[in-house]
Amino acid sequence: MIDNPFYSSEFHGDYEIVSVGRLDLEEGGTIPDCRLAFTTWGELNAAKDNAVLITTWYSGSHQIWRDVYVGEGHALDPSRYFIVCIDQIGSGLSTSPHNAPDEIAMSKFPQVRIGDDVVAQERLLREHFGIETLQLVVGGSMGAQQTYEWAVRFPEKVLRAAPIAGTAQNTPHDFLYTKALNEAIMSDPGWNGGEYASNADVVTGLTRHAGIWAVMGFSTEFWKQEVWRALEFESKEAFLAGFLEPYFTAMDPNDLLCMAWKWQRGDVARHTGGDLEAALARITAKTFVIPIDEDMFFPVRDCRAEQEMVKGSELRVVQDVLGHLGLFGVAPTYMPQIDQHLSELLATNA
Amino acid sequence: MIDNPFYSSEFHGDYEIVSVGRLDLEEGGTIPDCRLAFTTWGELNAAKDNAVLITTWYSGSHQIWRDVYVGEGHALDPSRYFIVCIDQIGSGLSTSPHNAPDEIAMSKFPQVRIGDDVVAQERLLREHFGIETLQLVVGGSMGAQQTYEWAVRFPEKVLRAAPIAGTAQNTPHDFLYTKALNEAIMSDPGWNGGEYASNADVVTGLTRHAGIWAVMGFSTEFWKQEVWRALEFESKEAFLAGFLEPYFTAMDPNDLLCMAWKWQRGDVARHTGGDLEAALARITAKTFVIPIDEDMFFPVRDCRAEQEMVKGSELRVVQDVLGHLGLFGVAPTYMPQIDQHLSELLATNA
Repeated sequence: MIDNPFYSSEFHGDYEIVSVGRLDLEEGGTIPDCRLAFTTWGELNAAKDNAVLITTWYSGSHQIWRDVYVGEGHALDPSRYFIVCIDQIGSGLSTSPHNAPDEIAMSKFPQVRIGDDVVAQERLLREHFGIETLQLVVGGSMGAQQTYEWAVRFPEKVLRAAPIAGTAQNTPHDFLYTKALNEAIMSDPGWNGGEYASNADVVTGLTRHAGIWAVMGFSTEFWKQEVWRALEFESKEAFLAGFLEPYFTAMDPNDLLCMAWKWQRGDVARHTGGDLEAALARITAKTFVIPIDEDMFFPVRDCRAEQEMVKGSELRVVQDVLGHLGLFGVAPTYMPQIDQHLSELLATNA
Repeated sequence: MIDNPFYSSEFHGDYEIVSVGRLDLEEGGTIPDCRLAFTTWGELNAAKDNAVLITTWYSGSHQIWRDVYVGEGHALDPSRYFIVCIDQIGSGLSTSPHNAPDEIAMSKFPQVRIGDDVVAQERLLREHFGIETLQLVVGGSMGAQQTYEWAVRFPEKVLRAAPIAGTAQNTPHDFLYTKALNEAIMSDPGWNGGEYASNADVVTGLTRHAGIWAVMGFSTEFWKQEVWRALEFESKEAFLAGFLEPYFTAMDPNDLLCMAWKWQRGDVARHTGGDLEAALARITAKTFVIPIDEDMFFPVRDCRAEQEMVKGSELRVVQDVLGHLGLFGVAPTYMPQIDQHLSELLATNA
C-alpha cells in the first residue's frame, strides 16, 4: 500500500467508498474486499427508476464528470435523474494495486476485466441503492467499454446506452497502442517489476507515457492549429510540461497498468464465444454510439462498424479537433454536442 | 566505430561510397570527410541530362528502391534514366555515428540537418558525375523532406519533384511522434548516452521503438483487417517478432537518432526566415505531391496544405491501407499507383 495524495478528495472532490464484498474475477483471481468509489448527484425517486450510471475512463475519475458533464443545463441533470458515477477498479480510488491490502498489493494485484467491473457495479447499485434498472449508462473510452458490457451483460437493466469514443471489442491497433503505453512505464528501472516505493520512482517512465499520449491522444490538427494556446500555454513544450506530464506523473503506475490490461482486452464477444454480432444483438437498450471525429485510436469507422450491429441504434459523431482527449471537454463546442445527443437519447421511449 | 554487419552489401546489395570532402554543417559542426553511399542504375548520357535522384527515408537505404521501385516496367526505368539513389547521412551506409572516425563517433557525432544532406548530395552529383540538372528528385518520408529541400534550395537544378508521404515543413505532431521514438531508444540503460559497445546492448529500447512504429507506421485498418496475413504471418505478435522488431533491432541506435533529429527539424522555410509560402514559391520544378491516404503522421491534409503553395503542382493521393509504411510496397496495388503518378510526372514538359 502506497500513500499517494493524488487519490484523495483534494483532487477528486467528494466521494464515497462502499465495499461490494468478495469479487471473484474472470481470470481466476479474487479481490477479497472490493471497494468501489463513487459519487452521486440528485435524488433517487421512490420507484428507484430514475437512475443514470456513469462509468470512468483510463486515468479518469468521477471528478471530470462533475467538472464538465453533470449539472443543471446539461443532459445529465441532477434535478431529473439520480446520477451515479462509479470509479473503475484500478482507478486509484476504488480498489487498486496501490491501495489494496498487502496480500494483493502492487505486483500481486490480480488481473481484472471490464466484466468484473460491471459485475461489481451492478452489485453496488442493487445492494446499496436498490437500483434494478438504469435510464442510461454512459461512459467515454474505457467507460464506453463498460457501457457496452452493461448493455450486453444486463440487457434488461439498461434502458439506454451511450458509449462515447470507445468500442465494444477492443481493436488490435488499440491493443498495440496500449502496449506502447505500458512499455513506457515498465521500462523505467524505477518501476521495478511493480514493486516501487513511490510513484515518484517511476516519473521518467510516466513522463514517456505522457509523451505517447501526446502523439495519439490528440489529433494532428490539435498540434498544427496550436489548440493548446486556448489553455493559455505558450508552446507545445509548456503544454506538455504544464498539463499532460503532471497529469500522468501524479498517478500510480500499477494502477494505470491495471486499467490498461483491462482496456486491451475489452470484448463483449466473450459472452458469445467470440461472435461480436451475436453479442451486440443482445442489446435492447436504445443506443447512441458517439465517436469523436478526430479520434486517432477509436476512429469513427471502428465505432460505426459496431453501431451497425446494434438494433435501432444511431451513430452520433462529435466534431472535436482535440481528438480522443476531447473527452476532457476543453473545446467550448464539445459539451453542446454531447448534451444534444444525450438529451435526445434520454427523450426516447425505452 | 562499431562493427555492425547490417550495414553491408549482404543486406543492401551493391553500392559505392564516395567522399565529398569536408562538410560544414548548418548547426556549426563539421564532418571532416563526409562519405556518401549510393547506388546507380542506367547510363548517364553524354549531355548528362537524364539523371534522376532518389533520396532515402528514416531507417531505409537505396535497397528498398532497388527491390520495389526501380527497374524495367517501372516509371523509374534504367533504360531511360540514369538513376542515383544516395543514402542519407546517418543512414548507417553513408557517414553515420556508428561508422564515423573517433573524433566524431557515437555521442560526439554532430547535429545534421536535411539541408546538409542536400548540399552533400549536390556536391556528389556535380563533382563525381558532372550532373547539373535532374529530371526528377523523388523520395518518401524523410526522402520527401530532402526532395522539397532540393526543389527550394536548387530550383534551377530540379526539373520535377515528387515528395511521397512527407512534408516540406515538419509538423509539431511529427516532432512529438519522433520524440517518442527517440525516447524509446534513449531510455534503454544500454544506450548509455550513446556510448554502447554494440547495438545489441540497446535491443530492448530498439524493440520498444519498433512497438511505437507499429502504432503509427501502419493504419488502424491494417491491424483490423489483419493485412499482415498477406506477409504470411499467423498473428500480429508473430508479425512484430518476425518483421518489425528484427527490422529495427538490426540497426544502430545512434544512427536512428541522428536521422530522427533531422526529421524533427526538416523545414524549407529556414531559407525564407520562417515563411513557408515564400519558400515553396521558390520551387520551379513540376511537382506532384503524393501522400498516402491512410498515413497517420503525414496525413493527406498536411501534404495538401503544402501542395497548394507550390505553383503548378498536383496532389496525387495514393490509396494504401498499410498507411505510411505502404512505402515498403507490400500491397500489390501500391506500385501501380506510384508508377502511374511518376510516369505522368516524367512525361510533363519541364
